[in-house]
Parts: sequence; structure tokens; C-alpha cells
Amino acid sequence: MIQKFRFGSPISTDATVEELPIIQVTKENLTAAASAKKDCPSTVKDAEIGVLTNFFHISLGQSFSLSLTMEDSDAVYGLGQANRGINKRGYKYISCCTDDPNHTEEKVSFYGAHNFIMLIGKVSFGLFIDYPANVCFDIGYTKQNELTISTEGRDLDLYLITRTQSDDKENTDNIDSDALCITREFRRLIGQSYIPPLWAFGYIQSRWGYMNENDIRRVAKNYRDNHLPLDSISMDIDYMEDYKDFTVHPDRFPDLAALSGEMSKQGLHFIPIIDAGVKIEKEYDVYEDGVKNNYFCKRANGTDFVAGVWPGKTHFPDFLNADARRWFGNLYKRLIDLGIEGFWNDMNEPAIFFSEEGLEEAAKKVEELLKVKDNPKLNDFWAMQGVFNINNDHADYKRFYHNMNGQKIRHDKVHNLYGFNMTRAAAEAFDRICPDKRLLLFSRSSYIGMHRFGGIWTGDNQSWWSHLLLNIKMMPSLNMCGFLYSGADLGGFGSNTTRDLLLRWLAFGIFTPLMRNHAALGTREQECYQFEGLDDFREILTLRYRLIPYIYSEFVKASQNNSLLFSPLAFSWPQDKVACEIEDQLLMGESLMLTPVYQPNVSGRTVYLPEDMLFVKFTSATEYKTESKKAGWHYIACALNEVCFFIRKDHLLPLCPPCECTGELDYSNFELLGKTKEGLSYELYMDDGYTKDIAHEGRYLTLK
Amino acid sequence: MIQKFRFGSPISTDATVEELPIIQVTKENLTAAASAKKDCPSTVKDAEIGVLTNFFHISLGQSFSLSLTMEDSDAVYGLGQANRGINKRGYKYISCCTDDPNHTEEKVSFYGAHNFIMLIGKVSFGLFIDYPANVCFDIGYTKQNELTISTEGRDLDLYLITRTQSDDKENTDNIDSDALCITREFRRLIGQSYIPPLWAFGYIQSRWGYMNENDIRRVAKNYRDNHLPLDSISMDIDYMEDYKDFTVHPDRFPDLAALSGEMSKQGLHFIPIIDAGVKIEKEYDVYEDGVKNNYFCKRANGTDFVAGVWPGKTHFPDFLNADARRWFGNLYKRLIDLGIEGFWNDMNEPAIFFSEEGLEEAAKKVEELLKVKDNPKLNDFWAMQGVFNINNDHADYKRFYHNMNGQKIRHDKVHNLYGFNMTRAAAEAFDRICPDKRLLLFSRSSYIGMHRFGGIWTGDNQSWWSHLLLNIKMMPSLNMCGFLYSGADLGGFGSNTTRDLLLRWLAFGIFTPLMRNHAALGTREQECYQFEGLDDFREILTLRYRLIPYIYSEFVKASQNNSLLFSPLAFSWPQDKVACEIEDQLLMGESLMLTPVYQPNVSGRTVYLPEDMLFVKFTSATEYKTESKKAGWHYIACALNEVCFFIRKDHLLPLCPPCECTGELDYSNFELLGKTKEGLSYELYMDDGYTKDIAHEGRYLTLK
Repeated sequence: MIQKFRFGSPISTDATVEELPIIQVTKENLTAAASAKKDCPSTVKDAEIGVLTNFFHISLGQSFSLSLTMEDSDAVYGLGQANRGINKRGYKYISCCTDDPNHTEEKVSFYGAHNFIMLIGKVSFGLFIDYPANVCFDIGYTKQNELTISTEGRDLDLYLITRTQSDDKENTDNIDSDALCITREFRRLIGQSYIPPLWAFGYIQSRWGYMNENDIRRVAKNYRDNHLPLDSISMDIDYMEDYKDFTVHPDRFPDLAALSGEMSKQGLHFIPIIDAGVKIEKEYDVYEDGVKNNYFCKRANGTDFVAGVWPGKTHFPDFLNADARRWFGNLYKRLIDLGIEGFWNDMNEPAIFFSEEGLEEAAKKVEELLKVKDNPKLNDFWAMQGVFNINNDHADYKRFYHNMNGQKIRHDKVHNLYGFNMTRAAAEAFDRICPDKRLLLFSRSSYIGMHRFGGIWTGDNQSWWSHLLLNIKMMPSLNMCGFLYSGADLGGFGSNTTRDLLLRWLAFGIFTPLMRNHAALGTREQECYQFEGLDDFREILTLRYRLIPYIYSEFVKASQNNSLLFSPLAFSWPQDKVACEIEDQLLMGESLMLTPVYQPNVSGRTVYLPEDMLFVKFTSATEYKTESKKAGWHYIACALNEVCFFIRKDHLLPLCPPCECTGELDYSNFELLGKTKEGLSYELYMDDGYTKDIAHEGRYLTLK
Repeated sequence: MIQKFRFGSPISTDATVEELPIIQVTKENLTAAASAKKDCPSTVKDAEIGVLTNFFHISLGQSFSLSLTMEDSDAVYGLGQANRGINKRGYKYISCCTDDPNHTEEKVSFYGAHNFIMLIGKVSFGLFIDYPANVCFDIGYTKQNELTISTEGRDLDLYLITRTQSDDKENTDNIDSDALCITREFRRLIGQSYIPPLWAFGYIQSRWGYMNENDIRRVAKNYRDNHLPLDSISMDIDYMEDYKDFTVHPDRFPDLAALSGEMSKQGLHFIPIIDAGVKIEKEYDVYEDGVKNNYFCKRANGTDFVAGVWPGKTHFPDFLNADARRWFGNLYKRLIDLGIEGFWNDMNEPAIFFSEEGLEEAAKKVEELLKVKDNPKLNDFWAMQGVFNINNDHADYKRFYHNMNGQKIRHDKVHNLYGFNMTRAAAEAFDRICPDKRLLLFSRSSYIGMHRFGGIWTGDNQSWWSHLLLNIKMMPSLNMCGFLYSGADLGGFGSNTTRDLLLRWLAFGIFTPLMRNHAALGTREQECYQFEGLDDFREILTLRYRLIPYIYSEFVKASQNNSLLFSPLAFSWPQDKVACEIEDQLLMGESLMLTPVYQPNVSGRTVYLPEDMLFVKFTSATEYKTESKKAGWHYIACALNEVCFFIRKDHLLPLCPPCECTGELDYSNFELLGKTKEGLSYELYMDDGYTKDIAHEGRYLTLK
């Protein structure tokens, strides 16, 4: 059951798709409900709001906060793209889309803002805070057993999701856990997740630093010559002319359409990047049209706001303005017409290196500080050091405004909707431009609701083993919030990767829908062919392709059924206390339990089986060993070039023959893994010519 | 067997204490040895150098490098205070004492420079690169199976430590592993490790931000009133007057001697900090004496070098000058005379916030950059951002010189000796000032050799769970390099800690010789009494005191026998492949195997037993459960307020009665844990009135 409580007059976010009755909450009726007796509330309203006051202590003034005392045994899930573990207890998190690649443990904000949490314990419930500015979740940070959610403003919609007796009665077969039921309810509320084209499940190679078409050709050639499977090359900012959106550099990429055709013959796709900021440059039509039609975000005085980003000084399209959204979305056609079928939207938190105002202030400060440079006090020196640290300054987010349906709204009040609406602009345009074709689309910044329009990658990470583990732990949380098409920069974006880290990361990455190896300019080159022992990479990438039918099929099911593609063990074995704490194993689809190795210098790991399962170890793409394992703890050996996982009992894994790109996938000849048992079958959802509804056609693979 | 190879004419570091014959290596005799037949070298020299060329490829030009191909199964240990795991394979490390608290995975330099590594495999050996400038260890980073050690210069001593047949013959009972034998040989070479006074094993509370004597009194009172055991309060820079070494702030600490006496009555010690830089201030006698006697490091032109550190502009004492060392060491007497018995030496990498030259250059650059501030190119903006990032700039290390025995040596050539010799200055002075008393002394920066003079803490870390794990993994490596008195800032120095992190970190910290809770200004207060549920903290701290006789006894044995206090499982069970990869369990002393919990939101962990052991779980300081466990994998439950570890078979753990400070330790009444077996005994090394040689008196505790 979902109840929608409204505080004040919230800005509409379009996060949800279901219409629900609104229970308006005021300070007065909150007090009344709290003082009314639980058993006999005096009005219907009191009874409705009483549900809230029974659970929480709510404080409502200029700001909003909600708190409750947790039991020691309660676990808290959700928050999508957030730091730390699957169970979010023990720290605080601030939903505020932030361009910060240095995800160390104390960081509270990542690229996305996903305000759904779930408390699972004696009493279980889900909460969605539909509020587009900062939301703080203190989940046992200040006090170990206190959960507090707070916002600076007080205009928001709060959805309370509970599993009621009637939910169970409706479906007597429903033996799902509270967590699974509440997630499904929430996912139904926010609408079906985006399904990309089948080729988007192929392996993607990327690097910030492919400077021209020959760089691209070289990547393609190295992959194809070495029989390293590949479906796409994603292009970072260097393909553009001076980083201008929807342009192609005339010298570096003289004929993108021809290049695209040339690559297409090799079964390869291009995925160009689109950045949020539009370069200020006379005679650049995107800039001129935007200015003319008032499509850019404005300062309080009505002038267009100026932010320094990759192209230098830019304006930000006002994606919260429906007209601007339509205009910007239509611009993607320029690249689609050149044969492009996929895009990634970047820098859309929006990231700001500097604003004109911020740089002016900093310059003044530094001029003042330089006066004491001959004998600076320490504070002066620290001030000098910090003076230009004006990237993504929250002060800048108060310097520009959106036009939402004629209403002028300061950016910081709706900050977390910006990337969402950039991606929505593109997705809605794709429906107009090529209604019969699914395009690939993923974004860096996001808010719940955007999951209907595109995927996300988890942003700029680092070549750290701990970020491989973070990737593992983040997948189920992303799924809870609707983001199914997702994955991390395999091998790590910043810092220098190593061969062993990349191999282990790929061995997990072959299970994530978005499987992309991406690295930053200046870091060690990390295309698979850069390392010794190519065979190891080839076998792991090839196994990905053998898995694609299963991954795609489970993906479509998860989208259609509002279920999880990646799921914590806790959601399936809530009574098993050990299973509930396992965060380095994941269920993936209906058949698999993943047990990735995420540490250096080890040749195996321990795994916990909540029930008997079949251990599978791939020693190459085609050779594997299986072994039945009993419930309990096991140590499994898993060398650097091996992929190990488990198949759940009474489940099957279909594998297609090896191939080097999705265009070669052979759906006519499956190998079935699993403990054979009479009548066991696997329902395979297939892709059929990139039409949108094909996923509804279930076909069955049955054991001979 | 240890062979000492000399390349060029190295600077003497005093790292070692054993005199060994020197085998001088030149490019010529290296070539000769390499071309000579292994079996019949033409000269003795060829034969000696042939040992080297048999193991390694050595390149000798203006710089030095040594490399070899590793087997997949080889493990590499050592490097003391370095990043990552116990097995150092898979990354690179640069020995260069560096003030950088942000120990993320890609960092290559920490506060100490410990150039001892050991390769353990089919062929095993140890290497000590006695070279006081940067040394790069590429241990399978560039190529997975290649080990390369390189230096910019070519003057160095290389010690090759191997286990020869004759080593075994000498001692037929010697069943120790290669790793243990090689470590012991190396430790004998570098001399016996520092032993602090017994009270140094008590719990130390610290914080950067105790501003005056009332802050200190409040900490003491909160600990004593709550019966939270405590032995010492360590004082960060705020006790000084304007951060001037060997001064006490007259308003904040009007009578340190009286305060010291007052605390002493409560069984408490003060441990003040001493920084490397001496404030430039007229009439400050330390400054004036230093200038007058040429005790400070000088620029090429002979003027005293100026570095901005905590006091503002300072000079660096030339600790590589024996006269300056003696002078600086004697200054500690000023505080010793006030009742101080322990010190920590800080900022002695040396950390430099800015040099006069560096700040001048930066100011010029920024003035130039500000000219384009109205329309900066991105590179201009990045340049502005980076312009004042001149902390610990390597260019500064080339701007000053030492006077070593009359020789003028540029700092960067001997950088890693600076902190070592600051601490040596203090330790040698203590021997003069109070020859009959052991004082506590630990340092931030260090080089091998300093382990004879004092301990180290592992420098500024963060309140990250990963840094608790790093602490665990670093302990045995530190021990291999001679640093026995050591520990991390429990709870984490930077960032905000949480109650659960502090409890888990304390539960490991009770086993480390240096047990100090320390935090940075501006972070959350993390004295144990700042958190709810004080009982949990009290029981864990009290258990520390019950363990002190064992910890002290094992510490003294490790110092006297050149053995490890903390040891990897790999060193004791080299044939057990699973044990060899375990890095989150440690042997501690002869009786214990530690199995700390280092993850949030878990109520236990898996442990691997290479042989049968006795599981011990303390549910309070006095209540415990034991259970015999068979060799193999086990899951053990361990709640946030519990301490779990294992006692090795045929070993005992003596526990004294609970108390609140080392002054109350009762050595007359031990509880003995372990599987009782006739004749089993534990040799307890005791402390006796702070004399230096008492540790040689072995006494036996025997089962009734």
C-alpha cells in the first residue's frame, strides 16, 4: 500500500506515474493526529495522518524533518547511487547531484539523487521523498539507532509504502519478502524502467583521449584483429569542435557518417557524449537559437547565466522548460542522421568549473591576499590555496533560474532535476525522430523518474579495488530506485589501473547491463589489448556474449515486473541472519548468484550459500566445471582468468555460442547449465528487430 | 646469509649496526660476472657478484635499477609503512617520506621510507636498499610478473639476504619458514628495536584541539569519572606558544609542571608534540642559538632556508649535522624538567606548506593568470586552481642543504633521513639527560635505523573502515622493518568517525603496542565518552589493560629476538596456500591469532584456521566464552561490543586483573587462558622499575 502525504506546495518533479489520493499534512493536523488516540481517531484525516505519526516523529517549520528510532536488527536499503554498503546504516548521505570522482568513504553526495529508502525489520516500510533539492539522510550517523531525514525547505511529497495484510490476501502465492514487495510497489509507482536496444548489452570500449578517427580505427582494429569481442566505442568530448554540442570536429573526424558506416560493417557502434553546457560563440547556431528563444537558464536580472565548463564559457539549457527541452532534444537528430544510435549525457549535475561571478570574487580575494604574501599568516596561505576551489560551488546554484511553466524557480530548489530533464529531452526527442527504433541513452546525473528515459553509468570512479566492491554493492540499490541499465567504468576512470584489477572488474562487469571500460585522459591506457596475456581478456569478454541472452531476458523481466535484476541475499532469505549481512554476493536474475573476487593477490574467496546451489567455474569462454555445493560456507578457488558463480537450485542458465558482437548472436542453439530436473524450463525474453513491444513475447526454452 | 654490495660511494645512513665485508660493484665487474660461467667464475669477486647477477638483471648508469621476473606463486613482503596489502604485489611504491594523510589506493608514498623487501617463493631472498633518496619499487605494476627496483642516483648499498644450507645446519631445530629466517637475519643487521616504558602500552587519548589545561582536565575527568581506563593524554601543537618548539603557552598552560603533577596523581602522563621547524622570531632563544651556530639547513647561497609550517616562517634544524642534533636533543630537557616523560616528533618528513621561493613563484604566476580572468581558457583556470598547491613540493627539497661531517649535501639526496635523525637527536639526548629512565618517543617520519631510537605512529589517516583494514595489514610489515612500537590513530584522524567504527578499531587497537585515539581539529569529537553506550567502550579498554602483561612480554621478546610481534599467517604456514593469502588475520606474539572485524553492519566474519585453535570471545572485560575449533573455515559471530580472537594450540594467554592505568597493573594474580595441557608454560617478560635491562629477566608462569 502506498500513501501520498503532501507537505506545503511541492514543485512537480514527474518522478512518479501513478495517480494517488493526496493526504495534505499541516502542522495543525499533524499535532491533532499525534494527540488523537490511535484506536479512535476523530476524523478520517486524523486516521490517515496517524499512520505517519505512529511511525515517525515529524518536525515541520521552515524546514522538514522526520525521524525514528531503529532497532539494532533493522537494516536500511535504497538510496540508489550512494556511497558505502547495501545496508546504508552507520553514515549520512545527502541527495545532491555532485561532480566529484573521488569517492572516498566519507563522501555524502554522488552524481545521482535517489531519495528512496526502505527500513526492513520487525516493522518494514519504504519512503520516497519526492523533493528536488538537497535531502539529508542520517541513518545512524549522529546516533547509532536514529534515522533522520531532513530538507531545508518544507514543500514535498512523502510516499509511505507498506506491506499490508490485504496485499498478501490478493496474492496467496506471494511469499516474497517485505523488501521485495515494497520495492515492487515503489517501482510500480515510478513507472517501468528504460529498455535499451540489444546491442547496448555488448561490450563498450571508451577513453577520454581518442582524438581522431584514426584513434577510433585503431581501437576497432586491435579488438577485431585479436578477436576480442566488442560492440561499441564511446566517444568522449574530443570528437566535437571546441567542445560544442552537436558539432563534429572537421579535421579530426572529417566524415563521421562514413566512419560510422565503416565501423558498422565491423558490427560496431559509436556512442558520442553530449554535455549540458552550450558554448558561447557567435554564429554557433545552437548558442544563437538558445539565446534568441530564451532557452537558457537566466540570472535574477534576466541575463543568461554564464558557467565555465569544457568549451570555456557556456550557457545552460533550461531543461526544466518544456520548450527548451523540445528544442534541445531535436538537436540530437544531427548526429542520428550521421548514423549514431546511442548517446551519453554528461556534465549534467550540472558540473560548473567556475561562474563569472565566482571567478571575479576569487580574483578579488587573491589580489587582497597577495598583499601579505611576503609574510603570510597560515590562514592567509590556506585562503590562497582554497581561493580558486570554486568548482561546483553551491553559491553558483543560487545564481541562476529556471522557467518552469512560466514560474521562475531558482536552480538550487530544483537542482537534482537538471540531469533527469536533459535525458528526458533526448528520450522524448528520440520518440519523435525515430519512433520505431530504440536508441541507447545513459546519463551521469539523475533523479528517480529518469529511469524511464535512460540508463546511468555510475560516474567518474577510480582504478581502486574498493571501487570494484562499491560497484558490486551499488547495483541492487540502483535497481531498487528503477535504474536497471547501469554499470561502472570498468577498470576505473581516474588513477592507473593494473592488469589484475581490470581482469577482476571485467569478470564482474560481464554481468552488468552496461559493460563499459572507460578511463581518463592522462591515466594508463586500459583497452584490453594494452596488457600481456590477451587470452585471459578474450575468454572473459567472450563469456559476456554467451551470457547476453540471459542478461537481456532477465533485464526485460525486471523492467516489466518492476523487479530487481541485482538483488541482495537479504531480500530472498530474510530469515537467514548470515545471508542478510552478505554484501559481496548478489543474486542476478532468477538463476544466478554472483560471487565476484574483488581483492588483489588472492586466488579465491569465501562464499556463503543460503541453500544448496550449483557451483560453476568457467576456465575459458567454453570450458567450465560444475560442482554441487551444500548450503553453508565454502572457499572457492578462482584464478585471475576464471569466472565463478552459482546457479540456484531448480534454475537454468542458457548460454548462446561464442561470438564477437551482438550482431552475431545465435539464438538458435543454446547450451543449458543447471541441475537438470524433469520439467525445468527457462523463459527467455527475446529481442526482435528493435521494436519496443517485442519484449512481451515470452518464448520457452525447455530441457530436452 | 647477508651479502653487502656497494654501488658507487653511498652516503652513510646508519641504518645498520653489523659490520659486513663490502663487495664493491662496478659496471665492469658486473659485466664480467654476468659473462662468467656460473660454475667456474674466474675470480672470487666474480663469484660474489655472480650471486647478484644470477638473481637479477642490474642496470647501472647514471641511475640504478634491478629487476627480475617473478613466478605467479611468488609473494613479496616488506616495505614497512606502505600502502595496500601484506603481499605488496600488483602495484608500485616510492620510498619518499611524504606528508599526505589521504591514503587512497593509488598513493605510492607514506610518511616512512622502509626499503626492505622479501620475495618468497621457490627461491626466496630479502633485499635492503640502503639509499636515503627516493627508491621506486615496481612490484608487478607495469608488468604483472616483473619486479623492478630503481633509484635516480647510483650510490647505494644493497644487502642481499638469503637462507643458505649452512644456516639450517647451524641450527638443526630450525624449522622456521624462509620468511621468518630472512626477517630475523635482516633485523639482526639493523639492530635491536626500541623498547618504550611500560606505561607507553596504556591507552592514550589525543586530539588536535585541546586548547588549554582545562581541556586536558576535562578529558582526564571524563575518563576517570566514567572508569574508562587511560594512561596518557597526548598534546598536539596548541600547548606551545605560537607553535614554538620547547615553549609552553603562558595563558593556556600557565603551570605545566603543576598540571603534570596533578595528572600524575591520577596515574596520567602527558605526551607533548615537537615539530621539526623552528619559528623565526627575534629573542626566541632556540631560533637565535640555531642561527648563531649554523644549526639550520641552508640555501645554496649559505643563508638559512625558510619554510612555512605551523608557526609561520621557520628554519629547519640540520638533524644530519651531529652538533645540531646534540643541541636540539638537549632542548627536550626543558620539558623533561617539567615532568614530561614522553614525546612525539611530528612534521619531520619535513612537511613544508610553502617555501619563500615557492610562494614568490606562485604569486608571480597568479598575477600573470589574473590578466586573463575575464575570459580564461580552461588551462588558465586549472593553472589558477593549482598555483598555490605548493605543499611538500619536491622542488623545495632541492632548495636546501645539510652539513654532514663537513660535507654539503642537498636535501633531496638524503630526504628520508630527516625524521630519523630528529628522533635520534631526541633519543640520544634522553640517554644523556636521564640515563636511568626509558622515555616514550615516537615519530611520524622514519627510515630503517630509526627503529632503534623510537617508535612510529602511522601518521595522519582517515575515519575510514578501509584504514582500519590498512592498519591491520601494515602491522606485520612495520615489524619486518624493525618498527615494533607502532599503531594507527584509532578511530581515524581526518573525517568524522562513527561509534561503530571506533569500537571496531579499538577492538583491534587493544593489541597494538601504541594504542592511541587521535583526531583532527574540526572533526567530530571522538573521545570514548562522546558516544552513547559507554559500557561497550569501558569493557574493551579494560580488556586492553588485562592484556598488557602479555603484549609487553611479547614485545620485549620480539625486540630481543629480532622476531615479529605481528606476523602474517604465510610466515608460519608457508605450505598452506589458503593461509598464505589471508591478510585480515594476524598472529600476535606466540599465543594469539587475531581476527578483527573491520566492516560496518556485520555481526561477525569468516576466519580461516590453519590448524586447530581455541576460539575466545570476550563479551566484557571479564566474561568470556571459549570453544575449540578445528582447522578450516569458520564463521564467528562477534558483536560490536565483543572482542574475538584465537589462542594457538599448546599456548597460553596470561591476563592480569582489570585496572584503569598501568600504575595499577597487578602482576601477582594471572588468569591463564588456553587449552590446559600438562607442562604447558608461558614465559613472561616483566618490566621492573623502568630500568633498561630488566626485560632480560625471564620468569615463568606455569599452570597449577
